[in-house]
Formats: sequence, structure tokens, C-alpha cells
Amino acid sequence: MNLIGAELARVEPGLVEITLPYRADLAQQHGYLHAGIVTTIADSACGYAAYSLMPPNSEVLSVEFKVNLLRPAKGETFSAVAEVIKAGKTLSVVRADVFGIDGEQRELVATMLGTMICLSR
Amino acid sequence: MNLIGAELARVEPGLVEITLPYRADLAQQHGYLHAGIVTTIADSACGYAAYSLMPPNSEVLSVEFKVNLLRPAKGETFSAVAEVIKAGKTLSVVRADVFGIDGEQRELVATMLGTMICLSR
Amino acid sequence: MNLIGAELARVEPGLVEITLPYRADLAQQHGYLHAGIVTTIADSACGYAAYSLMPPNSEVLSVEFKVNLLRPAKGETFSAVAEVIKAGKTLSVVRADVFGIDGEQRELVATMLGTMICLSR
Amino acid sequence: MNLIGAELARVEPGLVEITLPYRADLAQQHGYLHAGIVTTIADSACGYAAYSLMPPNSEVLSVEFKVNLLRPAKGETFSAVAEVIKAGKTLSVVRADVFGIDGEQRELVATMLGTMICLSR
Repeated sequence: MNLIGAELARVEPGLVEITLPYRADLAQQHGYLHAGIVTTIADSACGYAAYSLMPPNSEVLSVEFKVNLLRPAKGETFSAVAEVIKAGKTLSVVRADVFGIDGEQRELVATMLGTMICLSR
Repeated sequence: MNLIGAELARVEPGLVEITLPYRADLAQQHGYLHAGIVTTIADSACGYAAYSLMPPNSEVLSVEFKVNLLRPAKGETFSAVAEVIKAGKTLSVVRADVFGIDGEQRELVATMLGTMICLSR
Repeated sequence: MNLIGAELARVEPGLVEITLPYRADLAQQHGYLHAGIVTTIADSACGYAAYSLMPPNSEVLSVEFKVNLLRPAKGETFSAVAEVIKAGKTLSVVRADVFGIDGEQRELVATMLGTMICLSR
Repeated sequence: MNLIGAELARVEPGLVEITLPYRADLAQQHGYLHAGIVTTIADSACGYAAYSLMPPNSEVLSVEFKVNLLRPAKGETFSAVAEVIKAGKTLSVVRADVFGIDGEQRELVATMLGTMICLSR
């Protein structure tokens, strides 16, 4: 997260937003944000969102996730918004949408559906 | 790929391996390789593997992928091995395994199943 | 669809609902609706939703889907609601939620994220 | 499983095969096996494969799975072969391939990657 310059922009119970300013060294061959980076911010947002509903002294790990890349990830800034759709004692299921933002324009560029696990420290 | 130090180690028709030496700035809070980085090398390997079977003047894009994170991604080096399981005219389906390598030890840390699309330039 | 008794309850552009009354022969060992049946109605709803936005003389096929099974699929009736989140010329990405309904109670039992392809006849 | 006529053809530790003879009432509009049925036998094979490695008095449930439908599911018989790729105390990750069989010909029609959970009774 530090390496790529991402920031935790919003944290509510079960809902987290991470933002990332565009940087040329995070882009693939066509100048769009690399799918791996899109995934990184979506996965991080999912993990924090699940974590926000877990009891104290928990740790969160990603079990699995699926990403659909919907459009070229272009924008000055990117926003990954994750929402818990099922918070279980052990497993939580989280959905995240990633938007590319350019001035007033905000376009959905990817969506994730993933499973997070709660571990007691 | 350059940013993280990954290298194309093997390219055969329908089979590609990417290797990545461990770096502390690619790790998450416990010192293991970040899930986003694991995904990045798996996705890149899948893309190249699909691309290796496409006609000249094609471009490859990831449509979607799913990753299962099986174990903490620890190792001195990581290897993502991707193999095309269906090469279609438009869509190709690719499977990738990511291994953490420590001396003689080689452990499966993640597996990906993804869909790549072929675009004509 | 006929075999299991499912019905198309709602069709709007990009949005489709399929309903299925519970039947004991569609259940697994604990009496809940079998995951394969949950998937069948979700996939069918996704296919129709994508199809509703395709040009005339198109055919729709499922490329892939992922399902998270969130709770035991119990209910007198089940409802799969699918919504297109990206309608492309070739590929469409669709999300579906499956609810178990018991009188006034309506609980999310599964969610699907899938990719459909448009073929010209 | 009974409804559709599927049979457990092979059970080894971590490896299970389920077979299903073609039946017209399991087909979709083009006469191929319905994606929901393909998924049902793949999911069942994954569940049994995970279960075969679990301690006594366990129960197995599907957490999630992803299916890629690779070719039209045609054949006189179908075979779903599932193999555990990571058996954990709580979660197991399983891969399944579904083949359509016609005389000597055996074609891969779908592949699944899924997560199963072990519950103690």
C-alpha cells in the first residue's frame, strides 16, 4: 500500500474506501493502471471492510477473490469501495467496486467478489 | 513488472513462467508477499501464456480471474507458472500456480483460474 | 428450468428475476436447496439479463461465473435477481443475488458474479 | 444427485470422480448439458474430494466456487474429476475438471476452482 501510494479514505463498519492517485510506474503497456494494482487496492479495501466488523484481537486474511476487469483503468485517481455482504464468525464475503475518476467523471473499471477469514491472534 | 522486479523466466507455446525475488517493500504486515503482488505475477503469466498462442498482431487483455491464496506467501523467490487450458479464437482460459521457493523447498502458495481476451490491433 | 420448476418472474432491460418454489427432490442432505440448483437459477437469471440488452438475432452463453454460498438455502420460495453491471458488444458482466423467502422473511443465500458472451446467430 | 442420475464412480483420498449419463431433460436450448448441471456434478465431486480427507464426524459445505465453461457440454456421459490441492483444517481448496465423453472421445468442457469448509458435527 505504501509502495503504490494508496490511502484509506473512508472507514465505516462494513464499508471501506481506498484511493490511489495515478502514477506512470503503476501502469501497463497502454498507460492504464495495471490489473495487479487494481486488484491490490480492491483486495485491501475488502480486507479492511471485513476487519472493521471483526472482534478485537482478530486478524484478517484473504482466502480468495475474483475480479472482473470491466474497462481500461484510466483516471487521475482510483477509488476502491468495499462492502461486506455477509459477516460470519469465521468467513466474511465482501464485494468491491473500483472506479477511475477524471475530474467529474467516475467510471466503474473493475469489480471484486471475495472471501476473507478471521483469525484470532 | 519492472516496478516489482519480475522476470519472464520461460516462454513455451501455451506455457509461461515468471519469477520474482522477494523484496521487503512488496510484503504485507507479516512479511509475506502481498496478495496483490502474488496476483500481479500470476495474471501476467496468464496473459503471456494466452498471448503465446494468439495470431500475430493480437493484443491480450485480462477479462477476469479468481485467485485462491493457499498459504502465507513466503520464500526467497516466487515463481508463477501459467498454462493455457483452452485457447479459443476470442477467449482463452488459463490456470496459474504460484510457488514460494526457499533453497530446495518449493511450496504452492496460490492458484489462479482466469479468462483472457484476444484483440486484433 | 422446466425440470426444476423455475419461472421467469420479471424481465426489464438489464434486470431479470427468476423464482423457484422449494421441492424436496431439489434439496441436499440437510434439506436445503442444493448448491447446484441455487447456481442454476442464478446463472439462468444472469444469462437472461445479459440477453435482454443484446441486439436481435443474438445468442447468449455463460463464459464463467463465481458463486459465494452465504447461508443454508432454506425457504418456501427462492428468488434469483440478476443485474447487468457492464454490457459490452461481446462480453457482459452480470451480478445475481439469490434470496430464500419464507413468508415475510427474505434472506440473501448466495451471490454470483459472472461473464456472458453474445454470439450472433 | 439422485434427481439427475449422477453416480460416485471413484473415491480415493483427495480424489473423486462423479459420472452422469446424458438425459434430454438435463439439457439447455441447444441440447447440451445445462451449465447448472455441469456445475452440480463438479461441485459435488469437489465436496466429496475435500470430505475424503476430513476427520471423522466432519461435515463439508461449499463456501464458493468458480466455473469456466470451455466448450458446449456434449457427450453420452459426463465425468467430473475433483482433486484437492490444499487440505486445511478449516478450508480446503479443490479443482475439478468436467469431461464430455462420446465413445473414445473425451473432451474437457468445464473446469472449477472452489473452496470447501469442514464443520464438526
